[in-house]
Amino acid sequence: MFSMKFKKPGGVRDFLPESTRIKRDIENKIYRIFSTWGYQEVLTPSFEYLETFLMGNSFEFGEKIFKFFDRRGRVLALRPDMTTPIARLVSNHYENVEFPLKLCYFSNVFRFEDHRGGRQNEMFQAGAELIGWNEIDADAEIITLAIKSLQEAGIKNFKVNIGHTGFWEGILKSERTSEKEKDALKSSLLNKDFVTLKEIIKNLSINKHNKALLLDITKLHGGIDVLNEAEKVSENEISKKAIRELKRLAEILAYYGVEEYITFDLGLMRDLDYYTGMIFEGYTPGLGHPVCGGGRYDNLIEKFNGVKPATGFMINIDGVLKVLERIQCKNEASKDILIVYNENSVGEGVEKALDYRNRGYTTDIISEKQMGKLSDEIKNIYKKIIRV
Amino acid sequence: MFSMKFKKPGGVRDFLPESTRIKRDIENKIYRIFSTWGYQEVLTPSFEYLETFLMGNSFEFGEKIFKFFDRRGRVLALRPDMTTPIARLVSNHYENVEFPLKLCYFSNVFRFEDHRGGRQNEMFQAGAELIGWNEIDADAEIITLAIKSLQEAGIKNFKVNIGHTGFWEGILKSERTSEKEKDALKSSLLNKDFVTLKEIIKNLSINKHNKALLLDITKLHGGIDVLNEAEKVSENEISKKAIRELKRLAEILAYYGVEEYITFDLGLMRDLDYYTGMIFEGYTPGLGHPVCGGGRYDNLIEKFNGVKPATGFMINIDGVLKVLERIQCKNEASKDILIVYNENSVGEGVEKALDYRNRGYTTDIISEKQMGKLSDEIKNIYKKIIRV
Repeated sequence: MFSMKFKKPGGVRDFLPESTRIKRDIENKIYRIFSTWGYQEVLTPSFEYLETFLMGNSFEFGEKIFKFFDRRGRVLALRPDMTTPIARLVSNHYENVEFPLKLCYFSNVFRFEDHRGGRQNEMFQAGAELIGWNEIDADAEIITLAIKSLQEAGIKNFKVNIGHTGFWEGILKSERTSEKEKDALKSSLLNKDFVTLKEIIKNLSINKHNKALLLDITKLHGGIDVLNEAEKVSENEISKKAIRELKRLAEILAYYGVEEYITFDLGLMRDLDYYTGMIFEGYTPGLGHPVCGGGRYDNLIEKFNGVKPATGFMINIDGVLKVLERIQCKNEASKDILIVYNENSVGEGVEKALDYRNRGYTTDIISEKQMGKLSDEIKNIYKKIIRV
Repeated sequence: MFSMKFKKPGGVRDFLPESTRIKRDIENKIYRIFSTWGYQEVLTPSFEYLETFLMGNSFEFGEKIFKFFDRRGRVLALRPDMTTPIARLVSNHYENVEFPLKLCYFSNVFRFEDHRGGRQNEMFQAGAELIGWNEIDADAEIITLAIKSLQEAGIKNFKVNIGHTGFWEGILKSERTSEKEKDALKSSLLNKDFVTLKEIIKNLSINKHNKALLLDITKLHGGIDVLNEAEKVSENEISKKAIRELKRLAEILAYYGVEEYITFDLGLMRDLDYYTGMIFEGYTPGLGHPVCGGGRYDNLIEKFNGVKPATGFMINIDGVLKVLERIQCKNEASKDILIVYNENSVGEGVEKALDYRNRGYTTDIISEKQMGKLSDEIKNIYKKIIRV
C-alpha cells in the first residue's frame, strides 16, 4: 500500500550531493565577501512567537506563516523572514552597543506558498543588515554589497531595481486617503495587477495631479533621468526628499562602480511592510522571482524597544543555485582513491586510507567482499584503485 | 507593558557573532574531514510528515516532536533527527544507486525538551551515514570518523562508549519476554534508573542465569577484557555473535589508532529505536549529554522500501561549541580597517574601501558625521583608521 510517510511533503525539497556542494560553495563565497565588508554572522532560532513576526508586518502576511503551539498553548511560528528576528536579537542583546553594527546571516525561512508554480515553502537566504546609520550612504553600501555578493556567487547577468517608499507615501500623505485604500494600492502594485490599480486610483479622493502621478507611477522606471522627471512632478516635501535621497544614492553607487546594474523604479513595492525608505530588488533572466531584495527599515528595531535606523538585504540562495545549476556543466561525482583490502590486510588498508586522507585526497576504503558488489560505473568515479 | 513578542521562546537560543564564528569554524573543520573520508553532503527539508519520523521510532518518542498542520490538515513535524530523513531520501532517490553510498549532513533538529536543565529544543548536528555495507568494518570506519571529527573540531578529552543491541536482545529473545517488558527494560537502562531496572528484571519470567546477567549488564563496562568476560557468560547465539562483532571491531579500531578513546559498555542504550547492532556514544567532561552518538540501523531504510544496511553517527555541535567556548579565550571582535570620509571625499573613501576589501582586509567605511557617534571602545577594534 502506498503511504505518504514514504514521501516528503510538497513544496520542500531534498538537496542531493551535487546541489548541496554548489549551495555550500555559493554560501562560502558570499560569506567571504560579507566578512571583508565587516559583517559578522549571527544565528537566530528557527521559530519564535508568532507575535514577534507580526510586529513589522500586516495580518495578511501572517497567513503565510507556519504556526504551531508550545506546551503552554502559546503560538509559535517558523520564521518567515530573517530581518524581524535580527531586529528582535539586536534589541535583546545590543541595547548599549554602538554603531556601526553590521550583522549577516545564512538561514532558511518558511512561508506557505502555492508550490504548484515551483515556489518553495522552505527557502534559503543569505543577508546582511547595517544598523545604526540613517544616511543614504548606508543604503549605497547595502546595494553594492548585494551586487558584489551576486557577482562573487557566479551570477553575471542581473539588474537591480531601486525604489523608495517615500515617493508614493508622500503623495498619499498629502491627501486624505485611508489605511485601507493605501493597503489596496500597495497590494495591487506588489502583484502588478494594473487593472485593479487603475480602479483603486480612480476612486481615491485625491487631486487630479496626484491621480495622474499614481496612474503613471509604473512608468517612472529607468535611469537617472527618471529621478529628474519625478523631481519635477513631485509637489509634496516627502516625495521630494525621497527623490533627493535616490539622486545622492545614484552618485555613491557610481563611486562604487556598480551603476551598470542599476535602474530606478518608483512603482517598486516589496512584500514586507516594514520598509521606510529606499527599497530594491534584483532580477536575473529565467528566475520568476527576485534573486535579491531589501531596503531601509528605520522603525522595526524601535518597535522592539531598540532605537536604531537600519538597512539591509537578502539574497535568494535557492534562486542563485537554480541559475548556477543551469549554467554549470553537471559535474559527475569524482573521488580520488579507493582502497580495497582482503581479510588479512585490513590493517594495511586502514593505514593507507588514513595517509591519503591526511594528505587531502578523497578516499574510500572497502573490503574485497564489498568490492564484488561495485558496478563499473561506480568504480569509474575513482582516479585510482589500490589493492592491499 | 512587557510582552512576550519582544523575547525569543524558551529552549532556543540566539548565536551572537563570537559563538557563530566558532560554530562555523567547527563545521568547516568537520566538513573537511567528512570530504576526505569520501562523504558527500545532503540536505533534507526541516519538516516532513509526522508518520515518516514514527517509522523507526516508538510512539513515546513522538511526544517529543514539534507538530503542525499543512493546508490540507495533514500532520507535519519538525525533524527530531536526521537519520530518518536520510533513510527516506535514500529510498526516494537512490533506488538503483549502489554501494558505497556515503552521505553527510550539517543540520538542526528539534525536540521538546525540559529546557530548565539547559537542554535545547533546537539542536545542531553534523553527521555521516555509510549505507550498503553490512560488515563491522563499516562500523569501525564510522566510529573512527566520529573520533577524528571531534579531534579536528578541537575536543581533546573524550571517551567513546561502545555497546551492541544484539547482546541484551539475544538474552531477551531466548526467553519469553513481552514487547512491553522489553521497552520498560530499555527505558530504565536509557535513563540509568537502576532501581526500576532491578524491579523489572526481578519480575521477568526468565532463567536465573539470564536474570543475573541482566542485573549485572551495567558492570560489563571497560576494555577488551569486558568482551572476553561477556563471551564466557553468553549462552545464546545472538549475544555471542554481538560479542564476536565487537571483538573484530576492537581489532580494526586498533589499526585506525584510536583504541585509547574506546571503552565497551554492554548496558549502553540509545534514545532512538531503530538501531540493530553496534551502538556508541561519546562523552567529554563538563557536558551533561553525549557529544556524539550513533550506531548500525540495518532495517530503517528497508522500512522506506530501500533494502540497504547502514551505520552512522551524529556530532552534537552545540556540545562541541559549549566545550570550545569554555576553553578558548574570548576573542574580542577585531577588524582591520576603518575608513572615514567627509562630505566631499565619499568617492575616494569608497575606492579605498573596495581596494582593502579586495585584498582581504575586513574593512568598514563611514561618514565623518557617523564617526562622531563612535565610542573609543568601538574605535579600538580597528587596527587602522584612515581619514580621506
